[in-house]
Amino acid sequence: MPHHAGRHFLQIPGPTNVPERVLRAIDRATIDHRGPEFGVLGREVLAGMQAVFKTSGPVVIYPASGTGAWEAALVNTLSPGERVLMAETGQFATLWKNMAARLGLQPEFVPGDWRHGADPAAIEARLAEDSGHAIRAVCVVHNETSTGVTSRIPELRAAIDRARHPALFMVDTISSLGSIDYRHDESGVDVTVGGSQKGLMLPPGLSFNALSDKALATAKKAALPKSYWSWEEMLAANKTGYFPYTPATNLLYGLRESLKMLLEDEGLDNVFRRHDRHAEATRQAVRAWGLEIQCLNPAEYSSALTAVQMPPGHSEIAFRKLVLERFDMSLGSGLGKIADKVFRIGHLGDFNDLTLVGTLAGVEMGLALAGVPHKQGGVAAAMRCLSAAAASGAPSEVRSAA
Amino acid sequence: MPHHAGRHFLQIPGPTNVPERVLRAIDRATIDHRGPEFGVLGREVLAGMQAVFKTSGPVVIYPASGTGAWEAALVNTLSPGERVLMAETGQFATLWKNMAARLGLQPEFVPGDWRHGADPAAIEARLAEDSGHAIRAVCVVHNETSTGVTSRIPELRAAIDRARHPALFMVDTISSLGSIDYRHDESGVDVTVGGSQKGLMLPPGLSFNALSDKALATAKKAALPKSYWSWEEMLAANKTGYFPYTPATNLLYGLRESLKMLLEDEGLDNVFRRHDRHAEATRQAVRAWGLEIQCLNPAEYSSALTAVQMPPGHSEIAFRKLVLERFDMSLGSGLGKIADKVFRIGHLGDFNDLTLVGTLAGVEMGLALAGVPHKQGGVAAAMRCLSAAAASGAPSEVRSAA
Amino acid sequence: MPHHAGRHFLQIPGPTNVPERVLRAIDRATIDHRGPEFGVLGREVLAGMQAVFKTSGPVVIYPASGTGAWEAALVNTLSPGERVLMAETGQFATLWKNMAARLGLQPEFVPGDWRHGADPAAIEARLAEDSGHAIRAVCVVHNETSTGVTSRIPELRAAIDRARHPALFMVDTISSLGSIDYRHDESGVDVTVGGSQKGLMLPPGLSFNALSDKALATAKKAALPKSYWSWEEMLAANKTGYFPYTPATNLLYGLRESLKMLLEDEGLDNVFRRHDRHAEATRQAVRAWGLEIQCLNPAEYSSALTAVQMPPGHSEIAFRKLVLERFDMSLGSGLGKIADKVFRIGHLGDFNDLTLVGTLAGVEMGLALAGVPHKQGGVAAAMRCLSAAAASGAPSEVRSAA
Amino acid sequence: MPHHAGRHFLQIPGPTNVPERVLRAIDRATIDHRGPEFGVLGREVLAGMQAVFKTSGPVVIYPASGTGAWEAALVNTLSPGERVLMAETGQFATLWKNMAARLGLQPEFVPGDWRHGADPAAIEARLAEDSGHAIRAVCVVHNETSTGVTSRIPELRAAIDRARHPALFMVDTISSLGSIDYRHDESGVDVTVGGSQKGLMLPPGLSFNALSDKALATAKKAALPKSYWSWEEMLAANKTGYFPYTPATNLLYGLRESLKMLLEDEGLDNVFRRHDRHAEATRQAVRAWGLEIQCLNPAEYSSALTAVQMPPGHSEIAFRKLVLERFDMSLGSGLGKIADKVFRIGHLGDFNDLTLVGTLAGVEMGLALAGVPHKQGGVAAAMRCLSAAAASGAPSEVRSAA
Repeated sequence: MPHHAGRHFLQIPGPTNVPERVLRAIDRATIDHRGPEFGVLGREVLAGMQAVFKTSGPVVIYPASGTGAWEAALVNTLSPGERVLMAETGQFATLWKNMAARLGLQPEFVPGDWRHGADPAAIEARLAEDSGHAIRAVCVVHNETSTGVTSRIPELRAAIDRARHPALFMVDTISSLGSIDYRHDESGVDVTVGGSQKGLMLPPGLSFNALSDKALATAKKAALPKSYWSWEEMLAANKTGYFPYTPATNLLYGLRESLKMLLEDEGLDNVFRRHDRHAEATRQAVRAWGLEIQCLNPAEYSSALTAVQMPPGHSEIAFRKLVLERFDMSLGSGLGKIADKVFRIGHLGDFNDLTLVGTLAGVEMGLALAGVPHKQGGVAAAMRCLSAAAASGAPSEVRSAA
Repeated sequence: MPHHAGRHFLQIPGPTNVPERVLRAIDRATIDHRGPEFGVLGREVLAGMQAVFKTSGPVVIYPASGTGAWEAALVNTLSPGERVLMAETGQFATLWKNMAARLGLQPEFVPGDWRHGADPAAIEARLAEDSGHAIRAVCVVHNETSTGVTSRIPELRAAIDRARHPALFMVDTISSLGSIDYRHDESGVDVTVGGSQKGLMLPPGLSFNALSDKALATAKKAALPKSYWSWEEMLAANKTGYFPYTPATNLLYGLRESLKMLLEDEGLDNVFRRHDRHAEATRQAVRAWGLEIQCLNPAEYSSALTAVQMPPGHSEIAFRKLVLERFDMSLGSGLGKIADKVFRIGHLGDFNDLTLVGTLAGVEMGLALAGVPHKQGGVAAAMRCLSAAAASGAPSEVRSAA
Repeated sequence: MPHHAGRHFLQIPGPTNVPERVLRAIDRATIDHRGPEFGVLGREVLAGMQAVFKTSGPVVIYPASGTGAWEAALVNTLSPGERVLMAETGQFATLWKNMAARLGLQPEFVPGDWRHGADPAAIEARLAEDSGHAIRAVCVVHNETSTGVTSRIPELRAAIDRARHPALFMVDTISSLGSIDYRHDESGVDVTVGGSQKGLMLPPGLSFNALSDKALATAKKAALPKSYWSWEEMLAANKTGYFPYTPATNLLYGLRESLKMLLEDEGLDNVFRRHDRHAEATRQAVRAWGLEIQCLNPAEYSSALTAVQMPPGHSEIAFRKLVLERFDMSLGSGLGKIADKVFRIGHLGDFNDLTLVGTLAGVEMGLALAGVPHKQGGVAAAMRCLSAAAASGAPSEVRSAA
Repeated sequence: MPHHAGRHFLQIPGPTNVPERVLRAIDRATIDHRGPEFGVLGREVLAGMQAVFKTSGPVVIYPASGTGAWEAALVNTLSPGERVLMAETGQFATLWKNMAARLGLQPEFVPGDWRHGADPAAIEARLAEDSGHAIRAVCVVHNETSTGVTSRIPELRAAIDRARHPALFMVDTISSLGSIDYRHDESGVDVTVGGSQKGLMLPPGLSFNALSDKALATAKKAALPKSYWSWEEMLAANKTGYFPYTPATNLLYGLRESLKMLLEDEGLDNVFRRHDRHAEATRQAVRAWGLEIQCLNPAEYSSALTAVQMPPGHSEIAFRKLVLERFDMSLGSGLGKIADKVFRIGHLGDFNDLTLVGTLAGVEMGLALAGVPHKQGGVAAAMRCLSAAAASGAPSEVRSAA
């Protein structure tokens, strides 16, 4: 590997830049996962995760990537051959749908253009048709990481309610949790899926399910085979802070630290406002460059990442390679059907104004070097946006979270 | 938590004491798992794991605990309702059997007394009976962590061969890999299951499957639903060092360091000899105490841990609690049907002579304090054993591994 | 370097085993030493050091080894050609005396046999003779690290007082501070010298002066040239938590953590009792081996280290080399005129019962391997001692320090 | 302390941002500084420092701040009352001069305006006058950290030579070493002073003297009292890689890593080119803002930092406080007679293009928020400069250093 001076800019939409405090917490001697000290740790992180999901119900923590928590949500609640309604918001929705099919379910995809979130009206219409209640679950990706589009969870909940349909509501918040306001209980979600490596500012290796009472009740009848992902033994052991099999202890150390940062040091609301500010500044830059934002509906802009369309005839793969080599910055690639057409700027996790400017400068200088048609001035536009925010009061993140 | 001076003695049979070098490796900034630097890492650890498993076939690395790799072995190779023959060597064999049942398989348990390894003759006899080849797999725990008994894998292979039975041979090496000599290819194993937190000296959170060609061929017809655990996409992506979903990057950093320690710095053969020496010294101590070793067959003694029977009427739970509080040492508990009857001394992983003496001193002083009937002199016996080994030549671990 | 499995036993009498918590604290991004966050750190560690020295007067922290703090004590209080009375307790007293001479002072050495502490009667007699008060300072090493002998500071203070002599009283506590009870104010010491790498459990690189009012008054007239070591600018800047030149910021992070461990988590009195217990157990072992302890006066036994005489004709250098190679343990060498005749066992800093047993086992097995005449049973004797302490109540270190 | 998300921008001209690799290296267990492993470390870092100083002569490493190495240079070479010629380049030159006076020397200050480097002609003229060779040394700060002005060392050497004066030539490279090309041997310097916390990318706590034969010869006659700083014992012990008193072991671990980065991974010439590029981009920004660079002579621009004048009537203290609070960036203050009139941008050490843009954005947005008269466009100007450099070939730091 060539040497790079200074700190790498990891501006993919996850894994995100892990704060030094979290890395240091992970770098602690592993303890006995059956001993008294572990129980304290277990209870702390389980309680903290409830606060992050905004739920009073149980949260399950898996030693697994987010993909595992997707599988857990499905196998704990469904039986072979059951129908699930999923919304085609992008690549991750597609992968989740493919997983459902592989697990023996019958996923039905509400089509989408990869530039909008899940459509409440379309969901409502489909559910209304389903008078026999064959559809057992509605599955939506809250923040579609491949497109930078956020689905409107409360409106989707209302759509299901309007259709008077009993389907479970399952939401993937892998790339929104801890970055974009999300409320499991208030939005009436039955299973929320989360992961460690995005807004939670951890390395990958932990994932989560937050559960409603309805989800727990449904789980008793779900016939898909399961063992590792089974909620039942997990919840029994979690009561005292332990796990039925060996947990990823060192990542849990990191989670404890990250929860302290989010909940106590900065405060979730400040965290969300910071992400909103950075996303707005990024969009101002994109517009100044004369490039097109993948997300078409301003109400669905993602505060975690911005996906940007490459001008026709220009390769995002070549562009990102150049940015990586010349400026030591990793950007997110186009995925699935928008591969080589869209690049993604991650502005989530442990991040601040000046790092955002550095990030956008890497994009702007990279566009020029790569010969991609664009206007200069994106960085300047973002700076105006950030300056205005700073001028309008103390930035949210320097206020005490108390 | 009360304060403890000095370093905790983590002498459970895993998770083991993670070397500082490995912790420091894990404490590195997370990188883009789709970038070029990651590919190098991926290829390195995949190759290193082949060397540890002693296989030229593929190894799969999961971001999951060992329990997940158990599940992966089953769901990739078997179809609902299929019969698997498992050997009741102790609690972990029982848990694996329970998992098979929960996944919809028909496990059949060759009974055992929890003091011996899997019996090749019994396995052979059962397979010989199965002229219709209803049994699709034979599953054995190499080192039964609950009892300190090691099953004789080559003899079990020979037994299957003598029965001319086509069943797959699947072996759990979670608590032996990197501590006790094990040879996937030479022993004709089809799926070997491993975990990170024992002899590999890592925190928990990674687990492994090593695969034979026969396992790969069988996987094509296996009908159990699977997605996260599916070998197919994993192997396709692994070819270039990548993974189909987000891997546990920081634990892979640790794995790279641990592989360097095992394969380059100490050398696997030296590692095994060190474990053998520590196990022998531990048994000398147990005998000097007048206590009984759980394993009855010297050919099946575990070099990774020693399970010791408490004298009747004495609680291992109370004993371990006292040792933890007074001497800041964690010992392994009795599990399953030997709960409160057996305690376990882990002497695996990153460990040396003087730490072993400290460990045994904690046991000996704890027995006295707890009023457990025993003879003194266990530590002295172990020291004689270690001294003799040191006198007979340079200890293996100070020789260059070259 | 050959590979060693497990954790190295660093049983020299300093640098000591640095706790992981302290290493992790040091491994933090360096901050602006002129910024507001630094001021908080500075004030915290300065206050904490007052508690450790048991003084209400100022403490100076140097970015330097302990040798630097020796020099600071002399150059801040003395003028060229002035006479200082020093006590020959061993190699470190000799080095301090040599330093005084090199700096242009006239040190006078009260002779000693390297097996006793400084003699109050001899000091008193010499001071009584000095009716002209030519002697400007009495300098004593509290814990002579080369011999394991502790001088009786309160009795020395009383001796100076009985002689009605105005000399400053300067004490080196480099290897006792944080391990052996020491009271700057109560013992009427004018300058106490300390270092980071022993009982304070830090890497080397920080050293200390604790000052009395008399020392500060004397400093105004002291004519030895000085700049780096000058108290004046240091104390002025310290008032707000800052330093006149760049401080060793990362080691100060470690100091903050170590002070928390000593003062809050374990409590200084518990720390001292723990060191007393380990020293007593070590001496029991030495006696059981039939070897001779260098310190002749039980009232002057060091709780930080034990120096042990080699039987005539046996080389401690060869013995320690063997112990290092075979058992990966570093022991302290003989220094100065007892080189190759005495080895030293450090039992100070972050240390516990089981690590002590491991340490003594390394010595006992090493003596046998090296063919050094001795009796077995040292480890057993130490275990009896530790067991008795454990039986007599909860070990001090598991009680809350509250 | 308020919480700040993301990474702090430590853009003072030292301490600089310590790379994670270096912090991780420091966070290793301390070893016996008399053992064989230490000797290897000692020899490695001493050899590496020779390469950095570009000298074949000895380098001395002190466990001390840079201020200590200033003192060492003086006390090892000079006698009380001797005259030294120093050049008033700014605050650090003034502090060194004050130190010389405090140590009993007679420093003579060649006056300067704090906007130019040391003037070769003035030095030559003064030396030419000194026919009796009363001046024993010429002391110059290579990179004056308070002003961002670099003195022309080869021209100063030539000036001394032209005057045929035997004075020693002593140069402070504390803030240039490892950032700006410097050649101890080639420039005929007798004592070079260095520190760890700038271009060497370490925390503070180590400092250096590089020595010529002439310096060593002079040292034999130098009568200033010294002990801690004495070269003699240091050089004797260094021959085998050891130190006469306890070295700052953990910082030496960091030094080994940093030397590897500078000498092997990036290569010194690439390091210098990178610093040149960032300094040029910074100056372009300052000019675009319409502000004045403190350094008046382009031949003396510093590549390590840029000092910028505040418009009259505006306080740099208030400006920096705002930048710290709003943008979590530390800038350097005005020092000495330019306090509150000049602020300093550090662009040295472990640093890259995008972090520089973030840094300059913090300045530009801070100027606006603070109401400091300026023109926008500084960031844009810097980006043009960086883009041009990137376009003109692979950036220096991505080339292999081989």
